[in-house]
Amino acid sequence: MTSRSATATARTSSEARAVARTQTLIKGEHGIGTVRRTTLPGGLRIVTETLPSVRSATFGIWAHVGSRDETPALNGATHYLEHLLFKGTRKRSALDISSAIDAVGGEMNAFTAKEYTCYYARVLDTDLPLAIDVVCDMLTGSLIQEEDVDVERGAILEEIAMTEDDPGDCVHDLFAHTMFGDNALGRPVLGTVDTVNALTADRIRRFYRKHYDPTHLVVAAAGNVDHNKVVRQVRAAFEKSGALKDPAAQPLAPRAGRRTVRAAGRVELIGRKTEQAHVILGMPGLARTDERRWAMGVLNTALGGGMSSRLFQEVREKRGLAYSVYSYTSGFADCGLFGVYAGCRPSQVHDVLKICRDELDHVAEHGLTDDEIGRAVGQLQGSTVLGLEDTGALMNRIGKSELCWGEQMSVDDMLARIASVTPDDVRAVARDVLGRRPSLSVIGPLKDKQASRLHDAVA
Amino acid sequence: MTSRSATATARTSSEARAVARTQTLIKGEHGIGTVRRTTLPGGLRIVTETLPSVRSATFGIWAHVGSRDETPALNGATHYLEHLLFKGTRKRSALDISSAIDAVGGEMNAFTAKEYTCYYARVLDTDLPLAIDVVCDMLTGSLIQEEDVDVERGAILEEIAMTEDDPGDCVHDLFAHTMFGDNALGRPVLGTVDTVNALTADRIRRFYRKHYDPTHLVVAAAGNVDHNKVVRQVRAAFEKSGALKDPAAQPLAPRAGRRTVRAAGRVELIGRKTEQAHVILGMPGLARTDERRWAMGVLNTALGGGMSSRLFQEVREKRGLAYSVYSYTSGFADCGLFGVYAGCRPSQVHDVLKICRDELDHVAEHGLTDDEIGRAVGQLQGSTVLGLEDTGALMNRIGKSELCWGEQMSVDDMLARIASVTPDDVRAVARDVLGRRPSLSVIGPLKDKQASRLHDAVA
Repeated sequence: MTSRSATATARTSSEARAVARTQTLIKGEHGIGTVRRTTLPGGLRIVTETLPSVRSATFGIWAHVGSRDETPALNGATHYLEHLLFKGTRKRSALDISSAIDAVGGEMNAFTAKEYTCYYARVLDTDLPLAIDVVCDMLTGSLIQEEDVDVERGAILEEIAMTEDDPGDCVHDLFAHTMFGDNALGRPVLGTVDTVNALTADRIRRFYRKHYDPTHLVVAAAGNVDHNKVVRQVRAAFEKSGALKDPAAQPLAPRAGRRTVRAAGRVELIGRKTEQAHVILGMPGLARTDERRWAMGVLNTALGGGMSSRLFQEVREKRGLAYSVYSYTSGFADCGLFGVYAGCRPSQVHDVLKICRDELDHVAEHGLTDDEIGRAVGQLQGSTVLGLEDTGALMNRIGKSELCWGEQMSVDDMLARIASVTPDDVRAVARDVLGRRPSLSVIGPLKDKQASRLHDAVA
Repeated sequence: MTSRSATATARTSSEARAVARTQTLIKGEHGIGTVRRTTLPGGLRIVTETLPSVRSATFGIWAHVGSRDETPALNGATHYLEHLLFKGTRKRSALDISSAIDAVGGEMNAFTAKEYTCYYARVLDTDLPLAIDVVCDMLTGSLIQEEDVDVERGAILEEIAMTEDDPGDCVHDLFAHTMFGDNALGRPVLGTVDTVNALTADRIRRFYRKHYDPTHLVVAAAGNVDHNKVVRQVRAAFEKSGALKDPAAQPLAPRAGRRTVRAAGRVELIGRKTEQAHVILGMPGLARTDERRWAMGVLNTALGGGMSSRLFQEVREKRGLAYSVYSYTSGFADCGLFGVYAGCRPSQVHDVLKICRDELDHVAEHGLTDDEIGRAVGQLQGSTVLGLEDTGALMNRIGKSELCWGEQMSVDDMLARIASVTPDDVRAVARDVLGRRPSLSVIGPLKDKQASRLHDAVA
């Protein structure tokens, strides 16, 4: 039995080698990297961006799982699991994992979102093999032991408490709840004290086995990297762990959901003795794949994306009513949000909300000036290029693109898409999105009378 | 009269041209930039780091003024002034300033510290002339008008309130007070509600004229920049504003203070209804120029600089008592601090403090293992190189070096200094610094009984 299965493995592995598909997706020049993709038999995708002029490399693995995939009882499991992958593998203790990357001055971390989880290490290019070894080991060989689950529960409960202590952060979780309600998108990524206390090692291990199959993963590396070497090393690591068992397995397609956000005129207030009232006024936005997202990006930038934006000018520059005021979009597979955040003294919350609401209404009706649109186009283009200067940002871009869109876009194509946005496109998306009835989330020390007036902002 | 004075100006200017001193301080190769310095007649220093492989440039101006230079009544004036330089010049409105940089996707900002203030813009290399034009205009031509002072007061009060709402941030201000007491280093950079309310346009204008003389400034540019072009443009901008009047003026020498920190066994608690207790346990550290700072850097890294560090392992990895726990150093001209931060549930604050104190005492007495020191040396070296990948970090390094040390050190020299730290050096600095009696700052909902026990941690 042993020798037969060894032969079978060897044959599968050599058949598999024959059918690995590699494509060059973007040809680099002038400081732009070359992007390549290899799909291994077993369904593991590997994308790299090679930029030989830098001295660093970032290696990451993206998992197609986020808090959106949790049942109510499992809320927080994705994030809990993210912590546990740092706690030890068959080959390494937690200290071995952190020491390995610390010893070369690298930066290793992970983040969990509603639709994906990412683990990464940023290192000097000469240390890339080490980073690949450690991160692949964490993804394929974690033990998730009972005692680690118990100790890490404490750290996660502290993380929840720390977030609670930062109302400017916390109000974003509240806004997700206001907009999505009691479902997976409306629940916090970290989970709650109750759900985290109820999660067991056994449930988390099941969650791990279900969601970390190679077909659910995208490997991404960027910087001074050699695509073929990365592929060889990643393949060896995954084959050794027995993870690439089925040569016919195909990568999971990008997520497709069917959620429509219907929230309109909702108000949620958490009373807390803070110095500022932290507010988000917003409405349903665009899904990540919506073709109007380029126009929406221009609109968002002009409205609240910088110091020269409408909201910054009206709320802070002219009136000094806030220090921090900005707008943002968040896109999911099937839906999205548009929001305006402001932090201001509680006594001024109604003034601030009125100014923001008036601007949204005004832009929904009249659009933006050509001047504002031209400036926002330039701002998005410049910040796109400037935002891709470090290898961490490059790795994020290609990894997320592969997982969420299943394709790669060159920087030149992105700049062209931004440039092609017309004032009419912006007006159309403003009329649609900003014309929707907003909802409102507030954390702050508002008295009853003030609280009841909040509904005026979303009337 | 007019023609005579014009002639005089012209002659001064041409004499000045003759004596501008330019030196190449570091010759670049292999992805390391070339660093040059020119000192203009009039006492203005310009340092640049040229790295032709990147597409961006960061331009900054550093002023030799921070909250340390404020009298009690002026507390917050440096930071207030920083805000006001964005509010308009003889040539530009506030909107003109922000629009100019936003339109090219640049990032413009400023920060105020206890010993310096910095204004900067990060842009695509082709937009560098624009960035130089805008930032020089702000530094030399700001109007500081009554009405802007009044409006901006609101934004600054909001900034103070926002900081108050973030206890993990706020506790650092409290620790400065615990360690330095009621003097300029112990006061918050932002000032207080009372001092900010009391500051007038007139006082801030006087502060501006006193502290923004060219001899007090360092201009720094990094990225794909041409030293001579930067010098020509900066010189023209400063000459036009009449700022380089005295050709014999010499740059201000790096700050030299005479403060010794004597705090020992002090405890300060701010009671607040937060989820976590936010604590800093620390002691007097090293001045910025202390030759033992390299050994101190290794010590700090091994103690609390990463996931494999002693404190992270003991407090979080083994016991799950905190999410965030780290140590840090801050160095000033004549003194410094060493601190350990942790955020934890109030009921566990004594356990966390005991673990931290025990580790500090143990390392003071027994030092670190050779293994820990070796890892920390590698970590510092790798992170030094990785930390200099973007042009903003390069600009910060050369600008701060020029202002605070009056000299530039190559990356290779820095790596060599780190490598030369011996276990004995680390033991010696640990014995000295960690052997000092600590003080403690806490923000959190501690009851009387818990609060009285805080003194145990600094006994």
